[in-house]
Amino acid sequence: MKKLLYGVAYYDEYMPYERLETDIQMMKEAGINVVRIAESTWSTHEPQNGIFDFRSVSRVLDAMYKADIQVIVGTPTYAVPTWMVKEHPEVLAITKNGPKEYGARQIMDITNPTYLFYAERIIRKLMDHVKDHPAIIGYQIDNETKHYDTSGPNVQQRFIKYLKEKFKTTDALNDEFGLAYWSNNVNAWEDMPSVIATINGSLGAEFSKFQRKLVDDFLAWQVEIVKEYRKEGQFITQNFDFEWRGYSYGIQPNVNHFSASKPFDITGVDIYHPSQEDLTGIEISFGGDVARSTKQQNYLVVETEAQAFSNWTPFPGQLRLQAFSHLASGANMVSYWHWHSIHNSFETYWKGLLSHDLQPNPVYHEAKTIGADFKRLSAKLINLKKKNKTAILVSNESLTGLSWFKFNHHSELNYNDIVRLIYDELYKINVEVDIIHSETDNLADYSLIIVPCLYVASDELLERLNQYVYNGGHAVFTFKSGFTNENLKVRTSSQPGIIEKACGVQYQMFVEPKNVKLTNHSYDIAEDNNEVHTWMELLTPTTAKVLATYDHPAWGEYAAITCNEYGKGFATYVGCIVSSETMSEILIDAVKRANIWRQEQQFRFPVIIKSGLNDAGHEMKYFFNYSFEEQSFAYPFHESVELLEDVTYQNEEMIKISPWSFKIFEVKERGRTNK
Amino acid sequence: MKKLLYGVAYYDEYMPYERLETDIQMMKEAGINVVRIAESTWSTHEPQNGIFDFRSVSRVLDAMYKADIQVIVGTPTYAVPTWMVKEHPEVLAITKNGPKEYGARQIMDITNPTYLFYAERIIRKLMDHVKDHPAIIGYQIDNETKHYDTSGPNVQQRFIKYLKEKFKTTDALNDEFGLAYWSNNVNAWEDMPSVIATINGSLGAEFSKFQRKLVDDFLAWQVEIVKEYRKEGQFITQNFDFEWRGYSYGIQPNVNHFSASKPFDITGVDIYHPSQEDLTGIEISFGGDVARSTKQQNYLVVETEAQAFSNWTPFPGQLRLQAFSHLASGANMVSYWHWHSIHNSFETYWKGLLSHDLQPNPVYHEAKTIGADFKRLSAKLINLKKKNKTAILVSNESLTGLSWFKFNHHSELNYNDIVRLIYDELYKINVEVDIIHSETDNLADYSLIIVPCLYVASDELLERLNQYVYNGGHAVFTFKSGFTNENLKVRTSSQPGIIEKACGVQYQMFVEPKNVKLTNHSYDIAEDNNEVHTWMELLTPTTAKVLATYDHPAWGEYAAITCNEYGKGFATYVGCIVSSETMSEILIDAVKRANIWRQEQQFRFPVIIKSGLNDAGHEMKYFFNYSFEEQSFAYPFHESVELLEDVTYQNEEMIKISPWSFKIFEVKERGRTNK
Amino acid sequence: MKKLLYGVAYYDEYMPYERLETDIQMMKEAGINVVRIAESTWSTHEPQNGIFDFRSVSRVLDAMYKADIQVIVGTPTYAVPTWMVKEHPEVLAITKNGPKEYGARQIMDITNPTYLFYAERIIRKLMDHVKDHPAIIGYQIDNETKHYDTSGPNVQQRFIKYLKEKFKTTDALNDEFGLAYWSNNVNAWEDMPSVIATINGSLGAEFSKFQRKLVDDFLAWQVEIVKEYRKEGQFITQNFDFEWRGYSYGIQPNVNHFSASKPFDITGVDIYHPSQEDLTGIEISFGGDVARSTKQQNYLVVETEAQAFSNWTPFPGQLRLQAFSHLASGANMVSYWHWHSIHNSFETYWKGLLSHDLQPNPVYHEAKTIGADFKRLSAKLINLKKKNKTAILVSNESLTGLSWFKFNHHSELNYNDIVRLIYDELYKINVEVDIIHSETDNLADYSLIIVPCLYVASDELLERLNQYVYNGGHAVFTFKSGFTNENLKVRTSSQPGIIEKACGVQYQMFVEPKNVKLTNHSYDIAEDNNEVHTWMELLTPTTAKVLATYDHPAWGEYAAITCNEYGKGFATYVGCIVSSETMSEILIDAVKRANIWRQEQQFRFPVIIKSGLNDAGHEMKYFFNYSFEEQSFAYPFHESVELLEDVTYQNEEMIKISPWSFKIFEVKERGRTNK
Repeated sequence: MKKLLYGVAYYDEYMPYERLETDIQMMKEAGINVVRIAESTWSTHEPQNGIFDFRSVSRVLDAMYKADIQVIVGTPTYAVPTWMVKEHPEVLAITKNGPKEYGARQIMDITNPTYLFYAERIIRKLMDHVKDHPAIIGYQIDNETKHYDTSGPNVQQRFIKYLKEKFKTTDALNDEFGLAYWSNNVNAWEDMPSVIATINGSLGAEFSKFQRKLVDDFLAWQVEIVKEYRKEGQFITQNFDFEWRGYSYGIQPNVNHFSASKPFDITGVDIYHPSQEDLTGIEISFGGDVARSTKQQNYLVVETEAQAFSNWTPFPGQLRLQAFSHLASGANMVSYWHWHSIHNSFETYWKGLLSHDLQPNPVYHEAKTIGADFKRLSAKLINLKKKNKTAILVSNESLTGLSWFKFNHHSELNYNDIVRLIYDELYKINVEVDIIHSETDNLADYSLIIVPCLYVASDELLERLNQYVYNGGHAVFTFKSGFTNENLKVRTSSQPGIIEKACGVQYQMFVEPKNVKLTNHSYDIAEDNNEVHTWMELLTPTTAKVLATYDHPAWGEYAAITCNEYGKGFATYVGCIVSSETMSEILIDAVKRANIWRQEQQFRFPVIIKSGLNDAGHEMKYFFNYSFEEQSFAYPFHESVELLEDVTYQNEEMIKISPWSFKIFEVKERGRTNK
Repeated sequence: MKKLLYGVAYYDEYMPYERLETDIQMMKEAGINVVRIAESTWSTHEPQNGIFDFRSVSRVLDAMYKADIQVIVGTPTYAVPTWMVKEHPEVLAITKNGPKEYGARQIMDITNPTYLFYAERIIRKLMDHVKDHPAIIGYQIDNETKHYDTSGPNVQQRFIKYLKEKFKTTDALNDEFGLAYWSNNVNAWEDMPSVIATINGSLGAEFSKFQRKLVDDFLAWQVEIVKEYRKEGQFITQNFDFEWRGYSYGIQPNVNHFSASKPFDITGVDIYHPSQEDLTGIEISFGGDVARSTKQQNYLVVETEAQAFSNWTPFPGQLRLQAFSHLASGANMVSYWHWHSIHNSFETYWKGLLSHDLQPNPVYHEAKTIGADFKRLSAKLINLKKKNKTAILVSNESLTGLSWFKFNHHSELNYNDIVRLIYDELYKINVEVDIIHSETDNLADYSLIIVPCLYVASDELLERLNQYVYNGGHAVFTFKSGFTNENLKVRTSSQPGIIEKACGVQYQMFVEPKNVKLTNHSYDIAEDNNEVHTWMELLTPTTAKVLATYDHPAWGEYAAITCNEYGKGFATYVGCIVSSETMSEILIDAVKRANIWRQEQQFRFPVIIKSGLNDAGHEMKYFFNYSFEEQSFAYPFHESVELLEDVTYQNEEMIKISPWSFKIFEVKERGRTNK
Repeated sequence: MKKLLYGVAYYDEYMPYERLETDIQMMKEAGINVVRIAESTWSTHEPQNGIFDFRSVSRVLDAMYKADIQVIVGTPTYAVPTWMVKEHPEVLAITKNGPKEYGARQIMDITNPTYLFYAERIIRKLMDHVKDHPAIIGYQIDNETKHYDTSGPNVQQRFIKYLKEKFKTTDALNDEFGLAYWSNNVNAWEDMPSVIATINGSLGAEFSKFQRKLVDDFLAWQVEIVKEYRKEGQFITQNFDFEWRGYSYGIQPNVNHFSASKPFDITGVDIYHPSQEDLTGIEISFGGDVARSTKQQNYLVVETEAQAFSNWTPFPGQLRLQAFSHLASGANMVSYWHWHSIHNSFETYWKGLLSHDLQPNPVYHEAKTIGADFKRLSAKLINLKKKNKTAILVSNESLTGLSWFKFNHHSELNYNDIVRLIYDELYKINVEVDIIHSETDNLADYSLIIVPCLYVASDELLERLNQYVYNGGHAVFTFKSGFTNENLKVRTSSQPGIIEKACGVQYQMFVEPKNVKLTNHSYDIAEDNNEVHTWMELLTPTTAKVLATYDHPAWGEYAAITCNEYGKGFATYVGCIVSSETMSEILIDAVKRANIWRQEQQFRFPVIIKSGLNDAGHEMKYFFNYSFEEQSFAYPFHESVELLEDVTYQNEEMIKISPWSFKIFEVKERGRTNK
C-alpha cells in the first residue's frame, strides 16, 4: 500500500437530501481519502428483477474521483432485495428456528442456487459498470459474511455427502462419532437425520465446521468472479467480524478467518470496542493481531466506530488515540462506519462521524487532526512490520467443542473468555503476539507459544507442539488442551494425552472448584485473587516440577500448575481457571523462562507500547496512555524522534503523555531494535 | 349521571350452585346498585352455532330489576366459543409467533370476516333480546379490546393498501421510511413483504399505528350496531385498560385511548393497582386522569380489584380509601371485578368481593360502608368537575418509537417509565393534571404543560407547542422530545429540532452517563439522588439559562437542564434522566414559574388532596392518608363541612386523618375555589 | 433377594476399543456382581428395520456368566433408531412446542402404534434371544419412562374419549371444570379443542393426569410382553427418576410412581445427588423412601453417580458413604451409571467409575472396598425392613395443581419445595418416614402423618384424614391443603374445607406476606429465621389452640399456626411458609405430641441414624457422618456389634466417626428395637 488510508463508509442512498458535494468538501477537510460504497444496497442497484440502476454508484465514483478520494466498491450481496424474496422465498435460510423472515440482512441461504444466480448477476453487472473507473482502489466481497446457521434440507443433503466423503462407511462414522450412544447409529446413509437437533457433540461440531467451510466456498466463489474484472493494483478484501458481545470480543465462531482469508489480497476487519471509561485498546489490538496474522501482513480496518451510541461516543482525544492504536497494530487503513448518522430504520443510534444534523461537531473536528497527521506521517507510519516472538494458538474447532461441552452446567464462560484471559494479560505487560492456528507451519519462529484450551486437536498437531518444545520452544498449555481428537472424541489415554510428553503431567479426574485457592507457589498474588474457579484438573506430575497446588482438604495432594523441561524447551501446564492477576504471574514467569523479557515489560497498562519496523527499516515505538491520568516516565529506548511534535528524545529523557493520548517515536538508527 | 354507581361484575354462569337470590340480597346489603354482565360468556349465550340461549341474561336482568339494581350488558365478543374455532380456525389471529391457539380470550383476528359475522350476529341477537329490559342502564362494547398483534396475510394486505393511500408511490414510501437501508426498498407494491420481521423502525411503528387503528374501527363498528337498539338514556361504554406490569401502569401501547373513545358516550376503564403497603393512590389517579381526559368528562371505573391475591387484598380501611380515591379523580362508578371468587379455570386467585366460600368476610363488610356512604352522599359527590391548570402531553407514537429505539441497549426503561417519573412527582406534591395528546386543541387552557419524551412529533405539533410558550404558557420538555417526525424519521436539523426555538438549547451528541452527577444547580437534592442515568444529552444553550450542568471530566462543559424565556412564557428543557427527587425539584420550580403554586403544594404524599366542583357548584376537597401513620395538620381552606362525619371545620382548624383513611370537605361558600 | 447387588451399567457398544475381558477383570476386582445392559441401544440391536443383531448382548451375557456376574437386560425402547424416524417421522411426539426432532432419547409418542409395533418386535426378538441365558437375574422395562408431553392430535382424540367416559355429558364437564369461564364451554364433544393452550387449570391438570396414565399403560403393556419370556426367579423392574433440578430433587411430576410401579416385581430408581461439600444424604434418603414406599419393600438403585462432573466427583470416602446410605434406606442394589466414561456424544462428562483413560483411579479403588464389604456383610445388610411411625402424604395431583396456581406471581417455589422443606427437617432430626399417597389404606399404621400442600384432594381422602386424627393419629397439614376437590375445583365451603373438622380452624383470606414475622409462639427460633414468606393464610381458630400469630399491623389478629384436639388425636395446621428452622420446631413439636420421640432425635444432622430389622431379625443401626468434622458421642443403644470393624460396643460407650464416614451396628439381642 502506498499511503495510509483514512476512510468512511458512505451511503449516498441513505441521505435525507442532496449532500454529495457538501459531504465531499467536509471529507476533504477531515483528510478522508477513501470511501467504501455499495455493499449494503442491492435494492438501490437492482430495484426490480433484472432492472439495474448504478447511477448512485457512478455519481459517487465520479465525484470522489474529482475530489481525489479513492473508493472501495463492495458487492451488495449480504442484504437481499424485497422482490427476490417475494418471488423466491426459498432463498431465505432455514435454521434450527425455522425459516428466516424478510427484514434484516444476512438472512439468506448462501448455498441456495437462486440466490447465487442473482448474486452473480448483480456482481457482474456492477463490476462491468465500474471496472474502468479510476477512482477505485479495490473491492470488498460481501460483508461480515457468515453462514447464518443455514441448515435446511439442501444443506443437510450436502452434509451427508461430505460425511460420506470423509468417512466412506457408516460404520466408520458410527465408530468415530460414537453414534451407538442413545441409539443414534446410522446404518444406511439414507437414514441420516437432519442434525439440527442432534445431541451428539462430534456430529454437531462437524456440522459447524462444514458450515464454516460453506463460508470459505462462498467467499472464494465471489472472489473468482470479481477477479475477472478487477484491474492491476486493485485489491480484493473482505470485512470479517469477531465474536460479538455488543462489541468485537474474540475469535469468530462461524468463520475460520485463516482459511476464509486465503483468496483475498488483503484482510479487512471491523473492530468495534468500548470507549469512554472502558477504552483499553485491547479489542483494537486483539482484532488487529488476528487480522495481521491471517496473512502475516498489514490489514485494513474496514469499519470501526466514530461516535456510536451509547458508550462509544469518544471522550475528547479518544478518536485520535483509537486511530493510531490501529496503525500501531499494523493497520494501513482506518475507516469509520460511517460518515453520517442514519435518520431511519435500525442503526439510527450507531452514529457516524456526523450526527444527524450533518454538521461539524467535536468528534468531526478531532477527525480532522487525524486526517492531517495520517497525511503528514503516512510514509513513516504505513506498512508497520512486526516480528513477534510470542504467539497464541487459537482453534475454531476447540471453540465449537467447548460450546458443546461447557466448563460446567452453570458457567457462562466460553472458549473466547480463556483466550481473552491470556491475551489481555499479555497486552497489559506489553507482550505483542501473533495469532496462530492448527495449520501454522512456522512454530519455530516463536520463543513462546500460548495454547489456551486446545480441546480439539489432531495427534499430528499435538505431536508438532511437543516437537516445538523439544526443540527449545516454550509453551504454556491450559486445562482441557489435548482432551479430544479432531472429531471431538475424547482420548483414551490418560490426560492431557499426547502433550503429556512435553508437559510431564497426568490427570484422570477434574472437578468444579469451590473455595479452592492456590498454594505452594511463588506468585505474587493478593489473597483475593488467589481463588481458582469453574474448572480444575487434579494433576499428578510425572516429570514436571510443581508450580502450585490446590489448598483444599480433599484435593490438596494434586498439582494445579506445573512446568516441565522437555528436550531444550519448557512446557508450563495450567490445570485450572485462575484470576487475571494469577494468569499475569504465570505469563510473566513464562516470558522470562522463554528469555524474551524486554524493556517493554517494565511498563504496564494503561501505558501500552507497540513496536515494528517501518518501510524505511526504522524501529517505531508507539506509547499510548489509556487513562484519565497523565503518565510520565524515562524514555527506555535509544535516541528517537517523536513524530507528532518532531522532537528528539534521548534514552532516559523524561516523557509525559497526556490523558487518552500517545506519542510515536522513530528510533534514529536504522534497524536498531533496542530489544 | 344521576347517582353514584357502586357495582360488581356478576357471572351467574360461573356460580357453583344456585345463588342468584342470595347474591342479590348480599349485594343490596352492600349498597351495590349496578352489575355488569355477559361480556365474557359467548359460549353460554350461543352454545352451538346459531343456537341462542339468553336465559341466564334474562333471569339476572329480571332479578336485578326486581331488586332495583341496574345492569350494564356487555357484548360477549372478546372470548370466542369452541365451536367457532373448531369450524373456522382461521378466526384466530396470526402474530409474529404464528397462529394463536384456543384457550385464552383475546385470541382472534378482529378483522376476520368470519369472526365479524358471528360477532355481529350474537350482538344483534343479544340486543334484540334485552333491548326493552328496564334494568339496563347501559351497554359495554367488547372488553379490554386490543389488536392482539394480529398480523397475518390479510392484515398485511390491508396494510399495503393503507401505505398506498398514505404514500401514493413506493418512492415516497422508500424515502420517508429510509427503506434503502439494508436493501429494504420496495419498488413495486407487489414486492412489499410482511412486516413481521422488519428491522425498519419507521415501517414497524407505522404498522403499530395501523394496528391501533384497527381497534378504533372495530369498536366504532360495534358501537354502530348497538346504537340501533339502545334506548334513550342508556350509555355505551368500553372497558379500556392500561400498560400492564402486573398492574395498571401507564399509557396503553396497543390502543390510542383518545381516538378509540370517540364513539362512546362515556369512557370506562379498569384500574388494578398495588395495595397493602404499596397502596399510594397513584395508579388510581393516573388511570382516572387519562379516562377523564379522553372526553373531558366524568368516567366509569368498570373494573377494579376487591381482594385479588396476592398483594391486592386490602388492609382494613383500604377498600374505602380506594373507592373514594376514584371519586376524587372524577369517577361516577366504582365496580369490582368481581362479585365472587371463581372456583375453576384461570383467575381463581383474582378474588372477588366474596371469597370462594361466598360468605360475608371483612372486605365485604367494609364494602357495605362504602355502599352506604355512596348512597348517602351521592348528590354531593357525583359529577366532580375539574379545571386543571397543568397537563401532561402523551403520545402513543412516541411510546412505540421508544420501544424501537430504547434509551440504550441494556436498559429496560421505556416511555411509560418517564411519563410516570413525572406523573408520580406531580402527584406527590398535589398538582392535579389533565392528560393531553397530539390533537389536543386547547393548550392555552393550561398554565403548565409537561412534555415527556415526545420522540415522535409532527412539525405542526412542535410549532404549536412553541406557540403555546410564546403566548405565555410554561412547558417542560424532556430529553428526546422533537427528535423525529411523525414517521420516526430523525430530524436533520440540530436537536431538539423545532422546539429549539422555545427551549433555546441545542445538542449534537448524547451518551450514556456513567458516574455523572448534576452540578451548578440550585436544587435541594441529597448527594445520593443527584446522579444522572441511562441517557444524557450534551446541551449547548443558545438563549437558555443553564439550570444544571454535568459533573464529569469529559462532559463538564455541557448543560444538563436549562430554562428559556420565549415570548411571554418559559420552556424548561431536561436533557437527562434524573432521580425522582431531582425530578420533583425540577417540577416544583416549573410550577412556581408557571405561577400555579397553591396551598395544596404545602402538602406532600402520603397526604393527597384532590379537588373539583360538585353539581351544586361547591368546591370539594378530598384529603387522603396513604400510610400507616396518622396525619394531622391545620385545615388550609375556608370553612367547610366534612361530609362523612357532617362536621364543620374552620380554616386553620386542626384535622386528623387516621391511617389508610380520608376526609371529604365541601367548602361552604359556593364557587369559592380557595386557590 | 439373596445377596446385595453392586453393579454398573455397561455399554460394550460405546467402548472405543475391545475391552470386555479387561473390564470384567476390573469389575471382579471391584466386587461388581451385576451389570445392566441393552436399555439404550436399539440401533445396535436392530441396525436396520427388521435386521436384528444381538451379538453384543450375547457376548456380554456369555462373558459375564463366565465371570459369575449377573446381568439385568433392559428393553431398548426409550431411544429410537434413525431408520425408524426416517421412515415414520410420525413416531415423534408432538408437544406444545411442536413435533420433536431426531437426536435425543425420549422423543417419541408412547401411544403411537408404529412405535409400539416396532417396540414390541424388538422386545420379543430380544427376549427370545436371551430368555434362556443363565446370566440374567432380571429385566428392566424401558428407562426413565415419562410421557414426554405427548399431546398431538391422536392423544387429544384419546383424551376426549377419556373425558366422555369420565363425565358422560358435556354439561357435566362444563360444570365441574368451570368451562363457562372465558367462553370455554364445550357443548358438543366434536367442539373439544386441543388442550395444548388451555387456560383452564382443571382441564390442563386432567390432561396431565391422563398423560401420567399413558405412562402406566405403556409400562404395564411392556411388562406383559416380558412376562411371557422371563423365567422363574427373574425380576422385572423399571428405572424411575425424580423431579430433576440438575439432580434428583422431589416427586416426579410426569409419572405417578405409586400406580406405575404396580406391574413390577421390584421398584428401581435412579438417584443422582450433589456430592463433595454438598453431600447430605438427603436425596439418597428421599429417593429411597419413595422407592421403598411404592411397594412397601426393598428396592434397587438402578443408577447413581460414580464420579460425574462437576460437583459429583466424590471426595475420598464419599463413594463408600453414599453406597451404604442407600442400603440404610432399604436398597438391595447400588449400581453406577456407569462403568466407563463416554468418549463422544452428549454425556461425556457424566463420568463413570472409570475415567476416559479406562484405568484404575482413586474412585475405582474406593469402589473395591465397597464391593468387598458388600460381599462380606451381604447377609447382615440385605433386605433391611423398616416400620416407620411417620409418613408424608404426597400427591401428584397437588403437584400439578400448584404448578397451575403458583404460590404467587413471582415466586419460583413449587410443591416439591414444600415437600422437601418438611422432608429435610425430619431427616435432620433423624425421623425416618414412609411416603404415602391418596390411595394408601393403612393410615392407622402411622402415629404421625405430615400432609404438605394437599391442594387437590377428594372429599373421601380428606374425610379419611379426619378419621385418622379422630382415631388417635397426629396430622400436620400445611397451607393450601384441602383447597380444591380432585378436579381442581375450589371448595365452596370456608377453607381449609373438610379438614376444618380435624384442624378446628377456618380462613377466608390469604395474602403474600411482606415483613411479617411469627409471634405469640413458644418456638426457639432466631430472629432472622422467624419470617414468613410467599404465602400466608389469615386463620381464625374455631376449636384449635393458637401456636403462633402474625406480627403485622393489619393481620395481627389472625392465627398462623394452630393445633387442635380432635377425637383421640391432634391436628397441627401451618398456615404460612416458614423458614427451615421454624419448620423444624413445628415438626419437633408434632413428633413429641405424637409420642414418637426417640433416642435418635437426640442426634442431629450431620450425624444421621438409619434403622431397620435385618433378615435375622436384628435391629440395625447405621450412623453416618456427612461432614468434614469428626463426630463423637456416647452410643445410645443396647450392646451392639459394629460390623465393619467387628467390634462390640456397649450402651453409652464413646464412638467416633471420621469425616464422610459411617459405622454399622447390629444390636445383639434379636428383635430388640431400643426405641
